[in-house]
Amino acid sequence: MKHCLLAAVAALSLAIPVAAQDAPPPTAEIPSPGEIAAAAPAKDWVAIAPSDLLVMDLAPAAKGKKAPVRRVVIQLMPAPFSQGWIGNIRKLAAAHWWDGTSINRVQDNYVTQWGDATEKKPLPPGLATMPESDYVAPEPEDRFLPLFQVNDPYAGAITLYKGWPLGFGPAKDDDFNSGQIYWPLHCYAMVGVGRNLSPDTGSGAELYTVIGQAPRHLDRNIALVGRVISGMEHLSSLPRGTGPLGFYEDTKQRVPIASIRIATDLPLAEQPRFEYLSTESDSFAKYADARENRRDPFFIRPAGGADICNIPVPVRAVVAKK
Amino acid sequence: MKHCLLAAVAALSLAIPVAAQDAPPPTAEIPSPGEIAAAAPAKDWVAIAPSDLLVMDLAPAAKGKKAPVRRVVIQLMPAPFSQGWIGNIRKLAAAHWWDGTSINRVQDNYVTQWGDATEKKPLPPGLATMPESDYVAPEPEDRFLPLFQVNDPYAGAITLYKGWPLGFGPAKDDDFNSGQIYWPLHCYAMVGVGRNLSPDTGSGAELYTVIGQAPRHLDRNIALVGRVISGMEHLSSLPRGTGPLGFYEDTKQRVPIASIRIATDLPLAEQPRFEYLSTESDSFAKYADARENRRDPFFIRPAGGADICNIPVPVRAVVAKK
Repeated sequence: MKHCLLAAVAALSLAIPVAAQDAPPPTAEIPSPGEIAAAAPAKDWVAIAPSDLLVMDLAPAAKGKKAPVRRVVIQLMPAPFSQGWIGNIRKLAAAHWWDGTSINRVQDNYVTQWGDATEKKPLPPGLATMPESDYVAPEPEDRFLPLFQVNDPYAGAITLYKGWPLGFGPAKDDDFNSGQIYWPLHCYAMVGVGRNLSPDTGSGAELYTVIGQAPRHLDRNIALVGRVISGMEHLSSLPRGTGPLGFYEDTKQRVPIASIRIATDLPLAEQPRFEYLSTESDSFAKYADARENRRDPFFIRPAGGADICNIPVPVRAVVAKK
Repeated sequence: MKHCLLAAVAALSLAIPVAAQDAPPPTAEIPSPGEIAAAAPAKDWVAIAPSDLLVMDLAPAAKGKKAPVRRVVIQLMPAPFSQGWIGNIRKLAAAHWWDGTSINRVQDNYVTQWGDATEKKPLPPGLATMPESDYVAPEPEDRFLPLFQVNDPYAGAITLYKGWPLGFGPAKDDDFNSGQIYWPLHCYAMVGVGRNLSPDTGSGAELYTVIGQAPRHLDRNIALVGRVISGMEHLSSLPRGTGPLGFYEDTKQRVPIASIRIATDLPLAEQPRFEYLSTESDSFAKYADARENRRDPFFIRPAGGADICNIPVPVRAVVAKK
């Protein structure tokens, strides 16, 4: 089966926002970041394995047999990050554990959270109990490209690894001979593991995604396991909860989850296909530079820098060619 | 008429987000940022003049006579910022110009935008045409508190002025003897003036608010005129538009605006009252420090810094005592 590419990068949830104006004319001499990504050659796009995709189907928003299921696709993080929790998530999905649970919390400018509202549903056997030390990871063995000289208010240094924004720094504070550790960042649409007070780190059964300004103070305090790459609007546009912390006060407000599966457990024809713009590619370097310095026609003053969470990695759907 | 204070700071749209977890016990020894704000003495809270509040009533979400109007309250910026556009906005509100217009665009992780979808409605006479030079302002005459030693990826320096986050730097790039200029920042819930391509700067008739990660690359490229301080959820939780740039493709999706008024043009009993935590107060300094270093029970590792847009200025409603 061959695949052809959807050109509509801008239609994806993690796609590049454009300015708060009418569309600039397509004849612009200086391309926008989105145009740079869209023009990247096929070799700069990396396929995401369906085995690393978590597919969440929410109950339809409207009644009636023809009302469409709301599908959310989450890309799970690669090793060495959060693999214990991600292993639990694979077991929970295989056990169909989330089916019949719900979205229970939507706090404006913060998170949408789902899981078992009753907190009584037995977990499947064999889940790992993860230590807080796994909020960070050693340096991956693959090559790194420390692209960004970003003035980051949170992490000492920032990089990108296989499409994921990371912070890094010495394993022991103020000891630069202690080796480097790396951790994922709480950007928009990232997915994390709800937990109670430390030393509990959560099992992975209770998950949330970021729907507002990046709550980076949660970095290294909670496990991040992935990010929403499609259908984010189904999570970000839900009514805000009116209870404390944005929990739904009325159980009728909860949004039922029909199912959550690893994509490879779906029939082959239903498995979603995505790819990301390699963060090691020249195209990405150009894209990131354009995010930091908007020179396309709408802008009169390039910023000269950008928040790492404002350089979202382009992701696009791949549709099967019949 | 006396006023008493609503303790429910956390219920406000610009209030302090709390961690993605169950509520920590209220017996915590180290207070959270929200608890610090809530405990601030009355002298540290500053009343917002009703003449600086823009009240937008959206048509009810549901049908029926009892369905509640969705009210959004926007605080306009103080001088010397964007006063030309704000003067236009006052004239547009006085002329009831927005009544019957609509929200036409909701782009995920970016903006919600409203105004005249037909782009044909005549503007009231006497609107000023503002120059791009007014995207920035000279230093206000009042005292400044350059509180934040933030590593900001966009502006050379950051401060707060009467409750507003600002960037500042030399008037001429790389010339530190050229005097300082100041500009507001595109944080969550900030309200700006839609425009077409430069040198057009927009009249103020087309407005947007930020509903996602702070698009700080728009700083100094668009006029900011205020921020949503109540009812933000009515703008952030709307269905995302499926057209280019998040415009609604079907005119039926547009959200009708019943009216937009300056609060002082409403009957006295209906005028909303708000106050903000003085950014010059000791309470705010403690609050900001706690935002930069979360030490309340949920956290195991304080960040040691925070994005300026992640230190939202606490705002709370004041209700009339009968």
